[in-house]
Amino acid sequence: MGNTFGELFRVTTFGESHGPALGCVIDGCPAGLELTSDDIEKELKKRRPGKEYGSRDEEDTPEILSGVFDGKTLGSPIAIIVRNRNQKSGDYDYLKDIYRPSHADFSWDAKYGFRDHRGGGRSSGRETLCRVAAGAAAKKFLALHDIIVRAWTSSIAGIDLPLPGERNFNFDDIDQNIYRVPSLSYVQIIKSKIEEIKKEGDSAGGVISCLVTGVKAGLGEPVFDKLDARLAAAVLSIGACKGIEFGSGFACASMKGSENNDLPCESGKFASNNSGGITGGISIGQDILFKAAFKPTPSIGRMQKAFDREGKIREIEIKGQHDVCIVPRAVSVVEAMAALALADFLLLSRSSKI
Amino acid sequence: MGNTFGELFRVTTFGESHGPALGCVIDGCPAGLELTSDDIEKELKKRRPGKEYGSRDEEDTPEILSGVFDGKTLGSPIAIIVRNRNQKSGDYDYLKDIYRPSHADFSWDAKYGFRDHRGGGRSSGRETLCRVAAGAAAKKFLALHDIIVRAWTSSIAGIDLPLPGERNFNFDDIDQNIYRVPSLSYVQIIKSKIEEIKKEGDSAGGVISCLVTGVKAGLGEPVFDKLDARLAAAVLSIGACKGIEFGSGFACASMKGSENNDLPCESGKFASNNSGGITGGISIGQDILFKAAFKPTPSIGRMQKAFDREGKIREIEIKGQHDVCIVPRAVSVVEAMAALALADFLLLSRSSKI
Amino acid sequence: MGNTFGELFRVTTFGESHGPALGCVIDGCPAGLELTSDDIEKELKKRRPGKEYGSRDEEDTPEILSGVFDGKTLGSPIAIIVRNRNQKSGDYDYLKDIYRPSHADFSWDAKYGFRDHRGGGRSSGRETLCRVAAGAAAKKFLALHDIIVRAWTSSIAGIDLPLPGERNFNFDDIDQNIYRVPSLSYVQIIKSKIEEIKKEGDSAGGVISCLVTGVKAGLGEPVFDKLDARLAAAVLSIGACKGIEFGSGFACASMKGSENNDLPCESGKFASNNSGGITGGISIGQDILFKAAFKPTPSIGRMQKAFDREGKIREIEIKGQHDVCIVPRAVSVVEAMAALALADFLLLSRSSKI
Amino acid sequence: MGNTFGELFRVTTFGESHGPALGCVIDGCPAGLELTSDDIEKELKKRRPGKEYGSRDEEDTPEILSGVFDGKTLGSPIAIIVRNRNQKSGDYDYLKDIYRPSHADFSWDAKYGFRDHRGGGRSSGRETLCRVAAGAAAKKFLALHDIIVRAWTSSIAGIDLPLPGERNFNFDDIDQNIYRVPSLSYVQIIKSKIEEIKKEGDSAGGVISCLVTGVKAGLGEPVFDKLDARLAAAVLSIGACKGIEFGSGFACASMKGSENNDLPCESGKFASNNSGGITGGISIGQDILFKAAFKPTPSIGRMQKAFDREGKIREIEIKGQHDVCIVPRAVSVVEAMAALALADFLLLSRSSKI
Repeated sequence: MGNTFGELFRVTTFGESHGPALGCVIDGCPAGLELTSDDIEKELKKRRPGKEYGSRDEEDTPEILSGVFDGKTLGSPIAIIVRNRNQKSGDYDYLKDIYRPSHADFSWDAKYGFRDHRGGGRSSGRETLCRVAAGAAAKKFLALHDIIVRAWTSSIAGIDLPLPGERNFNFDDIDQNIYRVPSLSYVQIIKSKIEEIKKEGDSAGGVISCLVTGVKAGLGEPVFDKLDARLAAAVLSIGACKGIEFGSGFACASMKGSENNDLPCESGKFASNNSGGITGGISIGQDILFKAAFKPTPSIGRMQKAFDREGKIREIEIKGQHDVCIVPRAVSVVEAMAALALADFLLLSRSSKI
Repeated sequence: MGNTFGELFRVTTFGESHGPALGCVIDGCPAGLELTSDDIEKELKKRRPGKEYGSRDEEDTPEILSGVFDGKTLGSPIAIIVRNRNQKSGDYDYLKDIYRPSHADFSWDAKYGFRDHRGGGRSSGRETLCRVAAGAAAKKFLALHDIIVRAWTSSIAGIDLPLPGERNFNFDDIDQNIYRVPSLSYVQIIKSKIEEIKKEGDSAGGVISCLVTGVKAGLGEPVFDKLDARLAAAVLSIGACKGIEFGSGFACASMKGSENNDLPCESGKFASNNSGGITGGISIGQDILFKAAFKPTPSIGRMQKAFDREGKIREIEIKGQHDVCIVPRAVSVVEAMAALALADFLLLSRSSKI
Repeated sequence: MGNTFGELFRVTTFGESHGPALGCVIDGCPAGLELTSDDIEKELKKRRPGKEYGSRDEEDTPEILSGVFDGKTLGSPIAIIVRNRNQKSGDYDYLKDIYRPSHADFSWDAKYGFRDHRGGGRSSGRETLCRVAAGAAAKKFLALHDIIVRAWTSSIAGIDLPLPGERNFNFDDIDQNIYRVPSLSYVQIIKSKIEEIKKEGDSAGGVISCLVTGVKAGLGEPVFDKLDARLAAAVLSIGACKGIEFGSGFACASMKGSENNDLPCESGKFASNNSGGITGGISIGQDILFKAAFKPTPSIGRMQKAFDREGKIREIEIKGQHDVCIVPRAVSVVEAMAALALADFLLLSRSSKI
Repeated sequence: MGNTFGELFRVTTFGESHGPALGCVIDGCPAGLELTSDDIEKELKKRRPGKEYGSRDEEDTPEILSGVFDGKTLGSPIAIIVRNRNQKSGDYDYLKDIYRPSHADFSWDAKYGFRDHRGGGRSSGRETLCRVAAGAAAKKFLALHDIIVRAWTSSIAGIDLPLPGERNFNFDDIDQNIYRVPSLSYVQIIKSKIEEIKKEGDSAGGVISCLVTGVKAGLGEPVFDKLDARLAAAVLSIGACKGIEFGSGFACASMKGSENNDLPCESGKFASNNSGGITGGISIGQDILFKAAFKPTPSIGRMQKAFDREGKIREIEIKGQHDVCIVPRAVSVVEAMAALALADFLLLSRSSKI
């Protein structure tokens, strides 16, 4: 359970880090959407690590098994698989009986009583490639409705980047650098910082921002399936994410109503966007804006204490292929999850009125 | 759509602020649980405003219509209703054609093309009493498994309260003051601050913290239905909530792995709780800890600009019954939502192993 | 669990036969539909027994608690309740420790380990009034799309009635007689037969037919949620139903393809309707036609052997209020279930194409 | 939509008849179940046609892509794919613009406005192999609880076979003949009949019976998700199925309560099984028994009239690979669907009591 996302634009993912393949099935993508494996591969590339990260560099080649005919979606389930090729499963033998600190090893073993210890198995970050593959279809569907989802690294290793509207913020820069920051002028300083942390055998976290344009007023479902509630679930379902905030977010907690309220302006829009584009769980026709916090990857090269299966404390030094900072790669995953949630809401909204 | 929460312990709520009644149906509460309307009324009282708030003071008397026999749950749906009594619907006539700033009025009208303008209709905070009623059953079910959910006001109107473990933090204080802060020594200063804001015709926000004890390792579902993802959706589905963070939360974004990892200690537990009790979306047997940000209520007494139904800007002064700060009342709603999510996961976990 | 029907036009029902009230919550009925409690009461009346049946004659007065404002649906959940008034719970004391033969008493007790023995509790046929109430809203929604659902008694107590198109079949007759047969000329013979069975302290079964007109080609979802699969589940979820068949049904099993295939005719329709209006699980624009078998009510006045809670065999004579034949009353329930299933498919179909 | 079956033991299938592959994802199979690709292949073989049928004879080799490690299920999704190899897509070019009578061609095109015309695309009977693959896992899970699902051909081409308990009925015979009848003495007469129909360029239907042993009392969910309602949906979701009946089925409609009631006997069981093992939607600890009617395959060699895409009537002679009678092959599909429904109920039942 837990491997399906969405009600009408519904994605089920599968696959372990070191199993034969990973993949997804999209059920509910409407018929008639143009979609090719190139569309999917393009998105998967954004998730691939650069060599700088030192992690498993794998060419993820998607194969569409169903649901597309003559370049268009059929309305039937779209199954996409990506074969695992570059795994070095033997590297993980030492993890059979020990739980890496702050990893899912311990909690998943507690749940299932049995696990694939190789590279995290199902709990590996590698699982997110399926989200990106599915997100590619969602993005194409959203594009038909002029909705564009863009995410970027807005803080990394303690270095904060400019915000939209601020000097030096440039959307076009995001795709021009491996850190996926919106300002090329920061790349060198980030590079130095990341290398420093790498030398220390340590890891870094960061913040990812996401801006959605083109959403008309009226998207979202009331009460439990609010637009922000579902986006929160979507983004917090990414392994390393530890927090999310919309619009003025945590800052609004110490603001007054007169400061936080978004008032109308003559343009027909609102003068501020403290709501992050959502009130009462439903879009208001402004940009949707949220930020998500990602923890430093728990896999570090330093010697650490860890529990083994008998509950004894042992010492562990984590080997294998790891990112110093997964934030840049998670950018495409945040985009994918937001796109999937929005595509679902778009279909749900077709039932609001008689 | 959107009015149901949960997979196995499933709650559907209904009711508008000024309709005949609000209520909920709990489907999936296992048979044999002791439950009375007193259990529900006790929880509803925590949600009631004090006179200090100036809001509609309504005695919410729950009636159990089904699902309970001889004081125990039958396994069939538990329907609970609360009649609306004290509404002054005429007070809202001036809102028929105008949208209160940062309220759900505009977005809901965009969605449905039709709304009950009286007191926010379905988008009113009054809807949350149904969550608290359902949460009462969830809490009793969790108590059978020694799980206790406790929330409190950890910041209000810009005033931060002590954290668990800090001097002056006292769980027992929470129920002793209308602000639901964990430290009686702060009550007077908060009272002054709130009164000052009230005089200004303004409103205040705050932060609610939630601690769950007694959850064993292994609760949660992988990938999309992670424990934290679902808790996030649960809490962000509360109207005024704009952000959530687990454990070290946003702070972890600028920490290193060596700082953020929770290492084992001899007690068999972990020396820190930066994970907030959850790794890989599944509980690790530590306390679960999260914080949620609540915006200042958008209903303020001051004159504001607002859009009307024709898209013209008009002036509005919001009358009616409003809280200066809804945070203290939202504490019981956060508890209820967390309890509902956990009860659901507890049932789901029964299917993890053969 | 199990008390919710539908994906988008979603109904949850609640209530025990002898509890305070029964009711339903409809979540997903689109906004803007005209709906009053009169619409619901009108349908409930069709389900009421005549005095001839000897069963509990209760005026079921529905109250709409939410979701309707100014005579139109809001898009928010529509809660409807009906108070129980005429129950004589003491009549059922003798059933505390004994299971009526072929009733749900035994199986439900096995499932929950606890039950409300009064009048069948949740397993009572009285539960179906909630379906009829919800079905009233579904029917009004379908009517907007020119879809009409009509059911009738096509066989009762062994007496077969004429089929549509046959001599003496008259749709208008159905509402003119308590047996809900489509031919008034059969009423007297049925009356005699039923009275004879009543005198014997026995009960009778029958067949209900259902014809749906106005469904355009293309309704239904493929593979598991086929239109006929869902209609089957809808109708077989009515307690006493033991079988269903579409179009030529069981007869087609011994036909050849050349006999069973529906061939086109010049009118643009098909010359026969052996498919019952559905191929590959999706409507073809012909009338949808199915038949459902209902068993004789297991509550009979004769002395029978029965298991008690200890598994011992005792003798039982069932008292209380029972129908000799529930088929005529089940007609409105079949209509309601078909309407609910179709309303759901109508909303689902809005997502088939981009 | 519509490609997922089950709540907790949840199967999603995908694939078109002439696409690259078909497959399924099982989410919710509990961890620790022994499962190999041999288990799946063994079931798939039962679904393969014999050469007698004249249909596409394809070796369906399943590949498990995920969810199994060291021969046991991980609790994560089990993805299984089967490549299409033997398709002759060019054979179907003549079907691009014409709808085969009583096939899904027309209805699916009406729904999606676009279709894969090759071999029925997603509406092909080939889709059912995914059900059989998933059913293999469900059967293994049921076996842990001593539940065995057995289906067989009980009527074919108008020839009725003996019933369980009758002379010449032999469970072991079923796997010994390609018609999957429970009595080898009927094989020759069936063979003659089928060959005769084949020569006529025609097709035949039949009835499949299914018996489930080992289900304890208490399985099923009340009201809408009754055991029989879900089994009905499961079985009627198989393309050619047009009817289902439980226990005494349609015959009970003309029986009296005193005839149809199942009375207790000294053994602790019931003396008859007119209920088919289910009362009030929940199992009673007797064998579960149902019958399903299958129409003759609409693909026949004779010249027929058919609509084309413009709504004009043309003549069509269906070529390609078709079964004269799909009933024997559908036997394994009925078994699979029943097994999937029961596995789901078994998991759901874990939440009935506190």
